[in-house]
Amino acid sequence: MGIGNALVDVIAHADDDFLDENALVKGAMTLVETERAVELYASLDAAVEMSGGSAANTMCGVASLGGKAVYIGKVNDDELGQVFGHDLKAVGVPFRGGGLDHGTPTGRCVIVVTPDAERTMNTYLGVSSFLGVDDVDDESVASAKVLYMEGYLFDRPDAKAAFRHAAKIAHRHGRTVSLTLSDSFCVDRHRLDFRSLVRDHVDLLFGNADELRALYQVDRFDDAVAAVRSECAMAAVTRGAEGCVVVTPDAVLEVPAVPVERVVDTTGAGDLFAAGFLFGLTSGRDLAACGHIGSVAAAEVISHVGPRPLVELRTLLTDD
Amino acid sequence: MGIGNALVDVIAHADDDFLDENALVKGAMTLVETERAVELYASLDAAVEMSGGSAANTMCGVASLGGKAVYIGKVNDDELGQVFGHDLKAVGVPFRGGGLDHGTPTGRCVIVVTPDAERTMNTYLGVSSFLGVDDVDDESVASAKVLYMEGYLFDRPDAKAAFRHAAKIAHRHGRTVSLTLSDSFCVDRHRLDFRSLVRDHVDLLFGNADELRALYQVDRFDDAVAAVRSECAMAAVTRGAEGCVVVTPDAVLEVPAVPVERVVDTTGAGDLFAAGFLFGLTSGRDLAACGHIGSVAAAEVISHVGPRPLVELRTLLTDD
Repeated sequence: MGIGNALVDVIAHADDDFLDENALVKGAMTLVETERAVELYASLDAAVEMSGGSAANTMCGVASLGGKAVYIGKVNDDELGQVFGHDLKAVGVPFRGGGLDHGTPTGRCVIVVTPDAERTMNTYLGVSSFLGVDDVDDESVASAKVLYMEGYLFDRPDAKAAFRHAAKIAHRHGRTVSLTLSDSFCVDRHRLDFRSLVRDHVDLLFGNADELRALYQVDRFDDAVAAVRSECAMAAVTRGAEGCVVVTPDAVLEVPAVPVERVVDTTGAGDLFAAGFLFGLTSGRDLAACGHIGSVAAAEVISHVGPRPLVELRTLLTDD
Repeated sequence: MGIGNALVDVIAHADDDFLDENALVKGAMTLVETERAVELYASLDAAVEMSGGSAANTMCGVASLGGKAVYIGKVNDDELGQVFGHDLKAVGVPFRGGGLDHGTPTGRCVIVVTPDAERTMNTYLGVSSFLGVDDVDDESVASAKVLYMEGYLFDRPDAKAAFRHAAKIAHRHGRTVSLTLSDSFCVDRHRLDFRSLVRDHVDLLFGNADELRALYQVDRFDDAVAAVRSECAMAAVTRGAEGCVVVTPDAVLEVPAVPVERVVDTTGAGDLFAAGFLFGLTSGRDLAACGHIGSVAAAEVISHVGPRPLVELRTLLTDD
């Protein structure tokens, strides 16, 4: 079960000068208000709209691999909200949180993809930020093997409370609680909260090397690995083309990345890595296989525009 | 200046069985009501949303080639309407017909792309079908070198009246009036109207071989060419991979197609051919060059998903 900010991605291409002119931090996710979102959108090239949202992308990846996934997020009953709900349903992911007229529009993430395939995100949260404790379906959380939540939720107090609430229910039923750090700037904004959450509630932590270093405020990757090892039962840390590192109290396991002919758009790379890892874990694979399936899923999504797989990921899995 | 149905495309992939199960006519455009649109959309895979609309695609192509283009169509002030307006503005095409709350949603075209790259379209016209005489900006029509209208407009009486009105203004100012036949089923539905319009108002006719045969109810392509030759000052007829034929009272000129490595999605092929041809014509090229530029533009758009160019088409033109 995934919980996150339900967003439709608005994807456009631009060069690095565009980022400079608009004071955008390359590779980061920045929260924007309506006015700024409108302004940025107006200055961008023609765009494509596709469903996104970090944890929603991950749940779609799990389903695409052949796993069972459910998603909780919040959209308005407007056109983008309908698109969001449709796209989850189309890949077989039940969605809790659509169909109601909230007055506030569905959230969107304006993504600028630069020629180096790096994505820079500007999120107008809209109604997605209204996610709170009441939106968490306790029964679903209790029955899901893994609860998966995105760090982006930490930008709003209500969502943070929903997060803690869901984690408690999951643990009461002996489930695994996992979190993705989402973005190093998001970690910077809420470091103490993240630290106590990881220590007290998280069994499985996802993040990239930058995010992990930001969490523990250390320069060296190995120091970050040592820190997370002492605080969390398991961490799966991505390192781009260098692959991933799976950290447990017993071992630090390096898994190479799956080579990609041409990286087109890195949007969704972390989301799909998490999807593969979670699918491996919940289907009883060993950790090396989990990391490998994560890399397979990430490799697919970065080879095209858009944050969700374009092929059935299960067809990319070799027997293992 | 282009006038047409302003639509946002909703593009999803499916196999031929899907077409059979849903009684869809492959390659055709079918008008659907809200209920049917919702039903079809629900049964489709995850989709991508991109601005479309036949004549709007053509105007974007003209702008992408370096020409000047204006577009008249009708959208609601909802999210898809905003997307439509944004995407025209982003490529430098002024848009008349957005920004007002009409109560009726922006039209959309649900496009099913089969593995052979053929597209099958299901259009819910929404507010786009309210286009009428009052929406035609007489001054813009009077000052545009070419008036370009899509045959799809013929499915609604008000739009037909707008078409005739615009054609009269254009001719009064010595401008060229062009029409694309759009779809052979659309031609079948309104054959007599199309015939009298072509005879009385159209200087330059666009269409593919099927559409031209449908217009004149003949089996042989050559017979259709002979018929159009006697009724219309010029026709540019596409024949897929065989290229196009430019028909004038003086000559029938064959222009080969530009080869495409892999055809991904034929959506927009005819629209972009028209864009290239119109750009050539209005920039003073000879007819062979016009046909060639049309083929260059069509080749680009069928090599990727979506009905509009993804690169600046002007960069694909060699000096001539």
